[in-house]
Amino acid sequence: MQVEPLTLVILGATGDLTRRLLFPAVYRLFARGRLPELKVVGYATEEMSSKAFQQHLEKSLKEFVPKFSQEVWDRLKAQVEYVSGDLTPEKIRALEPQVEGNALFYLALPPQLFDDAAVGLGSVGLHREKGGWRRLIIEKPFGWDLESARGLRERLHQHWEEHQLFRIDHFLGKETVQNLMVFRFANRFMEPIWNAANIAQVQITAAETLGLEGRYKYYDQAGAMRDMLQNHLMQIFALTAIEPVSKWDANNLRQHKVEVLQSVRPIPQERVKEFAVRGRYGPGVMDGKNVPGYLEEEGVPHDSRTETFAAIKLYIDNWRWEGVPFYLRSGKRMKQSYTEVAVQFKEVPTQLFSGVEDLSNWLIFRMKPEEKIDLVAYAKTPGLNLETRTVVLCTEISRKEEMDFTAYEQLIMDAAEGDQTHFLRFDEVEEAWRILDPILKAWQHGQPEEYASGSLGPNGQGRLMDPGHYWRSPEDD
Amino acid sequence: MQVEPLTLVILGATGDLTRRLLFPAVYRLFARGRLPELKVVGYATEEMSSKAFQQHLEKSLKEFVPKFSQEVWDRLKAQVEYVSGDLTPEKIRALEPQVEGNALFYLALPPQLFDDAAVGLGSVGLHREKGGWRRLIIEKPFGWDLESARGLRERLHQHWEEHQLFRIDHFLGKETVQNLMVFRFANRFMEPIWNAANIAQVQITAAETLGLEGRYKYYDQAGAMRDMLQNHLMQIFALTAIEPVSKWDANNLRQHKVEVLQSVRPIPQERVKEFAVRGRYGPGVMDGKNVPGYLEEEGVPHDSRTETFAAIKLYIDNWRWEGVPFYLRSGKRMKQSYTEVAVQFKEVPTQLFSGVEDLSNWLIFRMKPEEKIDLVAYAKTPGLNLETRTVVLCTEISRKEEMDFTAYEQLIMDAAEGDQTHFLRFDEVEEAWRILDPILKAWQHGQPEEYASGSLGPNGQGRLMDPGHYWRSPEDD
Repeated sequence: MQVEPLTLVILGATGDLTRRLLFPAVYRLFARGRLPELKVVGYATEEMSSKAFQQHLEKSLKEFVPKFSQEVWDRLKAQVEYVSGDLTPEKIRALEPQVEGNALFYLALPPQLFDDAAVGLGSVGLHREKGGWRRLIIEKPFGWDLESARGLRERLHQHWEEHQLFRIDHFLGKETVQNLMVFRFANRFMEPIWNAANIAQVQITAAETLGLEGRYKYYDQAGAMRDMLQNHLMQIFALTAIEPVSKWDANNLRQHKVEVLQSVRPIPQERVKEFAVRGRYGPGVMDGKNVPGYLEEEGVPHDSRTETFAAIKLYIDNWRWEGVPFYLRSGKRMKQSYTEVAVQFKEVPTQLFSGVEDLSNWLIFRMKPEEKIDLVAYAKTPGLNLETRTVVLCTEISRKEEMDFTAYEQLIMDAAEGDQTHFLRFDEVEEAWRILDPILKAWQHGQPEEYASGSLGPNGQGRLMDPGHYWRSPEDD
Repeated sequence: MQVEPLTLVILGATGDLTRRLLFPAVYRLFARGRLPELKVVGYATEEMSSKAFQQHLEKSLKEFVPKFSQEVWDRLKAQVEYVSGDLTPEKIRALEPQVEGNALFYLALPPQLFDDAAVGLGSVGLHREKGGWRRLIIEKPFGWDLESARGLRERLHQHWEEHQLFRIDHFLGKETVQNLMVFRFANRFMEPIWNAANIAQVQITAAETLGLEGRYKYYDQAGAMRDMLQNHLMQIFALTAIEPVSKWDANNLRQHKVEVLQSVRPIPQERVKEFAVRGRYGPGVMDGKNVPGYLEEEGVPHDSRTETFAAIKLYIDNWRWEGVPFYLRSGKRMKQSYTEVAVQFKEVPTQLFSGVEDLSNWLIFRMKPEEKIDLVAYAKTPGLNLETRTVVLCTEISRKEEMDFTAYEQLIMDAAEGDQTHFLRFDEVEEAWRILDPILKAWQHGQPEEYASGSLGPNGQGRLMDPGHYWRSPEDD
């Protein structure tokens, strides 16, 4: 598909997101000829000439793009302008002469400015699709709870329509998350086993070794639940549990994801302890180095009750998933960095052979650090006795060069092509908040359980597990 | 399980089977301490002293056992005797003083002597289980058609009872054939997909590059159908299609195998062409060398109509397999040597993604030359487009040293322990002949189709395939 000529307007053009992720992705797409007729307009409060902005970008590209080419950059640079201003209509009007035809507005701004920016752009008519399409890209968080998400929605819709809004969840741009769908619907053997009759439990984990990394302003407001669970993990959860779609398009896919979320059994606020666990990292040892606890991190208030680890258990009350627990968890300063969906099948009804005691298969979609799909199975132990042993059927890991498209490239291309498949519809956001709101309300009191940095997380997470279930660790492989 | 003291009597002790396979297996079991109290009695028509027989065995061991140990052999040799004679009661009586307590009689004889040997041993009372058990091991062929198999049965049962008879199909002693069962019943994900709702076809192939190798006396009487299909491939077929057993024992397993064979839709003699194809290798090139055709091989009569390639299509009229074709074939002088069961799943009902055109999974149990299980699946092609590509989930190949137990070792141990699981019950043999008899009758006329040595077999084999099915080749991997 040939992408139409377009103008990419980046609001918050001098910030970290633009420098590290967004602009390198734009550059790589341009270098590959995927965005042949592109104009880029940077917008931010700093006073700066276009030339200075270009130099600022060049510096970041050299830092973040492995194969920087001066020739490519010279061609792209000629299409880059800068306009300074804030989000008031008076100032934002200055963008008008820069933008003609198709335009993509990317809000690379702190979340509390999303609505001002959307309203500002709309108030000067930049949302109007007269000579071309106009699209607005925003990134999570989409509100801080159900109520504020609904408030944000109203402000966005003051001028913009739903088909113009591209709510990024960059996990949806990831190769491996998309593979979850492809693997499920491209393989005949998946559908007959993908249900409560055969699956015992599902564990979705996103663990990282990193701590706060200086992001206290955002993170201490958010915490693990808002930062990871409400968006990324809820999306992976919905994609894992989704019913087959008749056709692969944005409407069907998002409709089916919403239906999964709508079927999640509500968690009553007074029973949150049975369904959710929070933790906060204390001091510990990472890679042989002492690291401070969360409360000792720079900028964190001493009375913070922000969780750096969150785990929840969800049940889906539909025909496919009746009674199957889905465990979701994410944490910082964990022992290992990895993201995976691990599906455990029920045990076989009868043990015909000796050997492995618990003959239950696992199917593991590993998304980080490496991309792979493992099927833990059982086969005969070589030798004269009829005994079982564990064998792992595994796909080759994707080669690094194959994985060289970042989630941001994927999502910018999708937005340029008007494909909303990998972007969230408002009702998805809303349902995710509906599920989690009672937990967030309960967590306004009390304190998270402390866990040592470099550990597997708080001990309390074990209480979520149904009888016979245990949190998997990649070391179990 | 500790094996009881026993005497192993080998009838046909100076022949090739004893030298190449049987005695090396006995030696290795002895060396590993698996047969702690063993006496071996060789019996054959050649006049020879025990000492000469021991020397004969020593020579073969040095040739066929990789880690020959003089110390082990000296211990075993002290237990080896030789008696010469034919199969008449007068002569065979000479074995009596040698055999006390438990005894295993192994008929390493040409098949036309099986009944004489069994009757001869019985006529002097060697089958009688007074001071210990008495067992008789025979190898295929068990008759040449349904009628002769029934005749052989009657002669065997003149003295021996079914629980004393161990009909070897050495394929059943193979690691990989046993793994077919273990993999199926130790993995939860197998049962929901192992049926006609999900499986499109099953292909069982045993191809070899070897030609006649001087065995014209036996082979020109047998042909591919009697040599491979009637026994080895029918066994693998039955194990692939078997219903789950409640308990892993000889009775259940053999009962369930027989039921598969009983459910096979009969092939009417007048419609054999639709269900069976025969071929005979002509001259060709193997490994860059010219090789003669079957009719040019030494000892083969010019008017031979023996097939060196046979392929059949079977349907199983039961609930699980309604309408699923099972294709079985075996041939000599084929392009590659390999044995595998390849199960193709139906295509997915809807193609949501572009990329691979025919999204149908294959599950492949490769038994030769390497042992492995491959699941051919589809995943996302790395990159910006939502396309599928083929990925293979494969088990690690068993290490050579792990596979160092031969089928003969397995089967000798089983017989010594009285475990009939891996031996055929007469009704299995009978049902296999019932299925194939109409084909063998039809093949008493006409000639096999010639195929070039080193090719994929006769072109005619394609006519067996249902619409949309094609013979798989390992090169498709």
